Amino acid sequence: MQRVVLFDEDDPLVLACGRSLAPVEVAYATYGTLDADRSNVVFVCHALTGDAEASGPRGWWSTMVGPGRPIDTDTSFVICPNLLGGCAGSTGPSSLDFPPLAIADLVTVHRALLAHLGIARVRTAIGGSMGGMQILQWLIDAPGQVRDAVLVCASSRLSAQNLALSHVARRAILDDPDFHGGDYAAFGVRPDRGLATARRLAHVTYLSEPGMAEKFSRAEPAGWADVDDAARWLGPAYDVERYLEHQAAIFLKRFDALSYLYLTRIMDAFDPFAGGVVLDPGSRALVLSFDSDWRFGTEHSVAVAAGLRAGGLGEVVEEVVASPWGHDSFLLDVPEYLEAVRRFVAA
Amino acid sequence: MQRVVLFDEDDPLVLACGRSLAPVEVAYATYGTLDADRSNVVFVCHALTGDAEASGPRGWWSTMVGPGRPIDTDTSFVICPNLLGGCAGSTGPSSLDFPPLAIADLVTVHRALLAHLGIARVRTAIGGSMGGMQILQWLIDAPGQVRDAVLVCASSRLSAQNLALSHVARRAILDDPDFHGGDYAAFGVRPDRGLATARRLAHVTYLSEPGMAEKFSRAEPAGWADVDDAARWLGPAYDVERYLEHQAAIFLKRFDALSYLYLTRIMDAFDPFAGGVVLDPGSRALVLSFDSDWRFGTEHSVAVAAGLRAGGLGEVVEEVVASPWGHDSFLLDVPEYLEAVRRFVAA
Repeated sequence: MQRVVLFDEDDPLVLACGRSLAPVEVAYATYGTLDADRSNVVFVCHALTGDAEASGPRGWWSTMVGPGRPIDTDTSFVICPNLLGGCAGSTGPSSLDFPPLAIADLVTVHRALLAHLGIARVRTAIGGSMGGMQILQWLIDAPGQVRDAVLVCASSRLSAQNLALSHVARRAILDDPDFHGGDYAAFGVRPDRGLATARRLAHVTYLSEPGMAEKFSRAEPAGWADVDDAARWLGPAYDVERYLEHQAAIFLKRFDALSYLYLTRIMDAFDPFAGGVVLDPGSRALVLSFDSDWRFGTEHSVAVAAGLRAGGLGEVVEEVVASPWGHDSFLLDVPEYLEAVRRFVAA
Repeated sequence: MQRVVLFDEDDPLVLACGRSLAPVEVAYATYGTLDADRSNVVFVCHALTGDAEASGPRGWWSTMVGPGRPIDTDTSFVICPNLLGGCAGSTGPSSLDFPPLAIADLVTVHRALLAHLGIARVRTAIGGSMGGMQILQWLIDAPGQVRDAVLVCASSRLSAQNLALSHVARRAILDDPDFHGGDYAAFGVRPDRGLATARRLAHVTYLSEPGMAEKFSRAEPAGWADVDDAARWLGPAYDVERYLEHQAAIFLKRFDALSYLYLTRIMDAFDPFAGGVVLDPGSRALVLSFDSDWRFGTEHSVAVAAGLRAGGLGEVVEEVVASPWGHDSFLLDVPEYLEAVRRFVAA
């Protein structure tokens, strides 16, 4: 992983909210080799809780990015930064003095990183969920800079239910007594209970109901009818409960509550087509969703594709892939999905 | 509202878990007049957070129960108790020394109340959600005691997603520092943050996504793009966020965290058809669901109806009612639904 300061006091990042931010440091990883004419660049935008490590044995998207994968690091030069506002090496909030962010701010930083690397254009930009939202904003903010966009289970406007679920999660963090108004680091604590609640809830929404049914035994634990101790009875017992506890525990080791607050909140106001957009007719997009995704389902992708077409993008390919794994599908080895991306980026 | 002690030290309630409980007091309300041959009894079972006050201007089910309503208090004698384990007058947990409960225990108490009132048979038993589960258990435990059963958006076996959502809610309560292992009353506090989280989450699952979209403005609050103060930016702003905050605040005034834990947990192990059942061929059931309900959707009602038929119930009528309001529909003025109940109970 590499780090670079992209904005400093002399040249601060001017945010959508009007405030300035400096310094802005970005951690990023690259995979593969940049070719001589700098034409093989793939930019990967991660989702809410990702980081720069997209590929490799510990990479969060090694199904998609790697040697021989749809984003082939044998032929492409892949750049993946940790997001502004994140907590894996890039500048992010350490208190509520940190300014509000917008998806557009994340894109401004991506473009600054690209400029720092001396790259003018991106052959392919790809991202799932909030990663796709960044690429959508990018198509609008810098028409022509991205040739091929791959937007997987993204959204151009959250539903009221999306807003509600994020609010429940954020409120659990804000209400944690260890949050201390965002100054928890100064108190030497972390709002782990609230962040764990947020993560458990998120995992329920990342899977589908049938996917959960397939993944977890529904049978009650052995001897359950005879449990006469309420503390034990109320604790995690069913497979799905233990799964959520496990997911929460590993998440606490790698993620920060303030980043969670900021990066969920930036999605709520995202509405890039609201004012009408003018896109580059030389660019193309693959807009892909999964049939069991109920966090950002196909109706979101339909709206994304319609907005891109209305804005004049050169070509918009829509795919709906069958998968029982809900929103999580974008991170998993779903052959039809990976093949659709491979086909699109090779075209 | 009336109160009666149904079990005492000399005659304790023997629970499904094997422990005994005494005393067991029940708060209940009645509406209408019992006729001479005691043949006009309607028994109402409330859901997770209900109480005995089913009818009247402040009643939680006044759309269904009242003069001229589908459950017509001009002609019926309606009995509605607060559940065992509840917090509105009946015996419930005040610490984790209170034993684990099962749906069957709730039914045992309902039947004891009926015996106390000198009533042998119930013409109609009706309930939604967990209320319907109690009636299902009743049909199994005492074949013939209930003639007509109305089971609205009930379930005979929770899905893994159902289990997961309840776990997230319970864990938020258990993790609240003010929970104190269930002894919060002794500390003079209440785990309000955890209980509020549970309620916010529940409300998201009680509405459908389209229902939420219809009910709440999705537009961002005025001036939102210029908010430069993170504490304000992260707080409730959108209509749906304010709605959830309102629902949480009023819920805290009327409900107790221990009751919430116990009454959600009893649903998880509910699986009354698991061992095969023998039902009364003289009884009938209406099994009704709503097309937008994703907490206990139509697939749950299909399973309930199939189990009742397999058990030999005399008649099983299935209805799926169109409504955008999700699980909440069972409490609302949805004419097609109310008419279906009216038709069934009049037959």
